[in-house]
Amino acid sequence: MSATAAAAETIADLLSARYGAVDPPAPGPSNEVIRTLLNHRSVRSFLPDRALPAGTLETLVAAASSASTSSNLQTWSVVAVQEPERKARLSVLAANQKFIRDAPLLLVWIADLSRLERLGQARGKEMEGVPYLEAFILALVDAALAAQNAVTAAESLGLGCVYIGAMRNRPAEVAAELKLPPNAMAAFGLSVGWPDPAVRTEIKPRLPLSLVLHRETYGAPAEAEELARYDAALAEFSRRNGMGDTAWTPRVLQRIGTLAGLTGRDRMREVLTAMGFGLR
Amino acid sequence: MSATAAAAETIADLLSARYGAVDPPAPGPSNEVIRTLLNHRSVRSFLPDRALPAGTLETLVAAASSASTSSNLQTWSVVAVQEPERKARLSVLAANQKFIRDAPLLLVWIADLSRLERLGQARGKEMEGVPYLEAFILALVDAALAAQNAVTAAESLGLGCVYIGAMRNRPAEVAAELKLPPNAMAAFGLSVGWPDPAVRTEIKPRLPLSLVLHRETYGAPAEAEELARYDAALAEFSRRNGMGDTAWTPRVLQRIGTLAGLTGRDRMREVLTAMGFGLR
Repeated sequence: MSATAAAAETIADLLSARYGAVDPPAPGPSNEVIRTLLNHRSVRSFLPDRALPAGTLETLVAAASSASTSSNLQTWSVVAVQEPERKARLSVLAANQKFIRDAPLLLVWIADLSRLERLGQARGKEMEGVPYLEAFILALVDAALAAQNAVTAAESLGLGCVYIGAMRNRPAEVAAELKLPPNAMAAFGLSVGWPDPAVRTEIKPRLPLSLVLHRETYGAPAEAEELARYDAALAEFSRRNGMGDTAWTPRVLQRIGTLAGLTGRDRMREVLTAMGFGLR
Repeated sequence: MSATAAAAETIADLLSARYGAVDPPAPGPSNEVIRTLLNHRSVRSFLPDRALPAGTLETLVAAASSASTSSNLQTWSVVAVQEPERKARLSVLAANQKFIRDAPLLLVWIADLSRLERLGQARGKEMEGVPYLEAFILALVDAALAAQNAVTAAESLGLGCVYIGAMRNRPAEVAAELKLPPNAMAAFGLSVGWPDPAVRTEIKPRLPLSLVLHRETYGAPAEAEELARYDAALAEFSRRNGMGDTAWTPRVLQRIGTLAGLTGRDRMREVLTAMGFGLR
């Protein structure tokens, strides 16, 4: 996982793993940064008693702040949770996932329009743009760009990370726990810690380039055939990693094909409106 | 901008520039990856005639595909536009920005729920979760995480990038130009190319750590004072870079304080609905 460990593998190895050995692209330009990016895998087993090096949190946030932000509006914040009791309460709100309690650091990334609102209030100006869906898009994208830089920085240090979308299962309760003001929403969580070396992680195959990369215009002429090959590659990955032999398609159908798969997030619009977002 | 160039500066230098010399954090753990992240600056002046190295596009997309994605749903795509005429037409739709025409590569990042819809149609299943705001959030976040990895990879190669939020000014027209199916939206663009060495770029100061990093719970006790110091730092940055002496606050008030600052994006909800998104 660390930059050093990644260096042991060639770019060709990393690309082959990333595409489940299905038509990986030829290796292009490379360096330590690209190796770190290609070598990502989510970590869900952490050493609960190994602390992060001094200055890690500040470094991760400085990396996050270095990401682009729409018109420099910086419509994001991050809440760093390290107190075991608070982490435990938040884990319960986020599908009761154990790794949230185990990892020493939980970063909750906030789509934060509240700072702009406070700025307007301090100057007696109505912030006319804030109640629009566009402002919410902007805040979500800002938060995601920032978080991904933090992930890259963490992984380059040999730390492991996993995003927690389940932090959106109970947005109002999470906001209350973190004392978020109106117009601020926990977009997702991120657990950060030292990976348990006893638990093997593997690069997860993604959809082939031919399905996600479109040239000049959108088109996916052989989508059904490509998806069948991807299903096979993912089933093989699942078998190797003791996760049954489920392919991609059935997981997708379960996760987004049914309302139950949204785990309560079908109420998102209503809840966000109650939290102050206009979403017009 | 390149990893090599960045190596010449210390982490302390990079942090000081990133925070406009206002209370930068002490240097923490570091390496080439972190240096690359901290050294980011948006590039808007490209060498129009210098092509990207062979395999660059595929490498950037492989880095993008290596980012986390919610439940592995991979609800993003990217359209790579290199034909000058199409780039020119898209630049007109995106605030007529010259750098879109100059840069050899325009990546348009798509919040893409259409692939899941097609999967359901092929199996005669209704994708119940797709018409919800939550699905749109998920697609936007997926697209942003992917794009940010591509940016990091590009910058590590010495390439320059700039995000183009204005790709949301005319979402329906952009979708038509790129032949996007329903339930797919150009979330933002990204120009990629070789920076013009004659045009100096500088690390842009961001809000201080104390305002974006909250510990345990959200709180910004000295926000007004900190913002005044940030305003001064940003005005100084603007002066140094020949951009007048505008501080942060007046820019924010112009950009999001007035409906005009949304440049037509106040219609986003209506337009996205017409493009097939449920946003329920």
